[in-house]
Amino acid sequence: MANQDLLPESQPILYSYWRSSCSWRVRIALNLKEIPYDIKPISLIKSGGEQHCNEYREVNPMEQVPALQIDGHTLIESVSIMYYLEETRPQRPLMPQDVLKRAKVREICEVIASGVQPLQNLIVLIHVGEEKKKEWAQHWITRGFRAIEKLLSTSAGKFCVGDEITLADCCLVPQVFNARRFHVDLRPYPIILRIDRELEGHPAFRAAHPSNQPDCPPEAAK
Amino acid sequence: MANQDLLPESQPILYSYWRSSCSWRVRIALNLKEIPYDIKPISLIKSGGEQHCNEYREVNPMEQVPALQIDGHTLIESVSIMYYLEETRPQRPLMPQDVLKRAKVREICEVIASGVQPLQNLIVLIHVGEEKKKEWAQHWITRGFRAIEKLLSTSAGKFCVGDEITLADCCLVPQVFNARRFHVDLRPYPIILRIDRELEGHPAFRAAHPSNQPDCPPEAAK
Repeated sequence: MANQDLLPESQPILYSYWRSSCSWRVRIALNLKEIPYDIKPISLIKSGGEQHCNEYREVNPMEQVPALQIDGHTLIESVSIMYYLEETRPQRPLMPQDVLKRAKVREICEVIASGVQPLQNLIVLIHVGEEKKKEWAQHWITRGFRAIEKLLSTSAGKFCVGDEITLADCCLVPQVFNARRFHVDLRPYPIILRIDRELEGHPAFRAAHPSNQPDCPPEAAK
Repeated sequence: MANQDLLPESQPILYSYWRSSCSWRVRIALNLKEIPYDIKPISLIKSGGEQHCNEYREVNPMEQVPALQIDGHTLIESVSIMYYLEETRPQRPLMPQDVLKRAKVREICEVIASGVQPLQNLIVLIHVGEEKKKEWAQHWITRGFRAIEKLLSTSAGKFCVGDEITLADCCLVPQVFNARRFHVDLRPYPIILRIDRELEGHPAFRAAHPSNQPDCPPEAAK
């Protein structure tokens, strides 16, 4: 890490776990902006979670992924990282210019990043217990998706807010994947499903997909 | 609400609950920026929670506070609302100019808004159950505060990031209040405590305090 501080011009390093939806958000944003980066896989399950080891705690005191070493600094928290990329790499903007549309992008990001994902996070589900975890995750995802579908009914064009891909889409697609993992019935959310389908084949989203990560176990790869 | 749409110049209306830490964040930001606003109290406990009634669901499909009617629009999600205020009301900036400091403000906001508050939220604690709720809340607040104290060790000046009040402070103070409610031992977090003490007497923070809200029950008022 000392070397990183001395070599801010080196390629960014993303601490990532293949199935982490928060890592995935940042991978999409990096890909959309065509920023080359190296991945340092942190296994959330090996040896009780590599994110809890002393070395990684120095990188991210929240002991979770992602973290991004970039420009000689270590940044944590996925949405914050994406805003940093947006502010420092203006190519391929991921935020609209219009102030109200910006608010709508942030709302959708915050519903997902504060209202849904934290409640179906691996470490929370461990605390909830094996028996109840599926029902618990379904409850909070369903609550969030109901609200998101309603927000999208006025904000969406081709994507979450208008016809350009924004940070909201970077948050939505990984959350839809999680919803499927927990067998949430997605039929009541046609706009969410349409946007997810629209982005499925996009090269930046495809390259960021869990099944295309270096740490994806062979049995989970497509 | 139809009237609001026709009268964008009217005073903003904040849907708020006295003890909601997310409402409190926005109250602080409005006060710091000296934006006059009206409060429409939404009781999270009366009749099973007024936030779940049909009328309010139209305001905020997440069925939670806060929501802000401003400039003819309805905005939800507390951190997003604060950024909207920052972008539309540049007086008394609550974000630093420096891009790295901005990232640090966002990190602290996101640790609190995604990593701590959602897990000790009233609706989550109802699901956790009466017996376990104190231990549950303490666990997640402690985890977050450990990380925040570490982040502050490099970012803090007089306040969370440098010597100016930022959105990070708007998020921190209400979270410290919640920590005390759940009897979290705060002695391991001297920087958090120092900043909280520093802001305790600030007029904008004091006016936003739960005990100074119109819907604060008399027995809880200072």
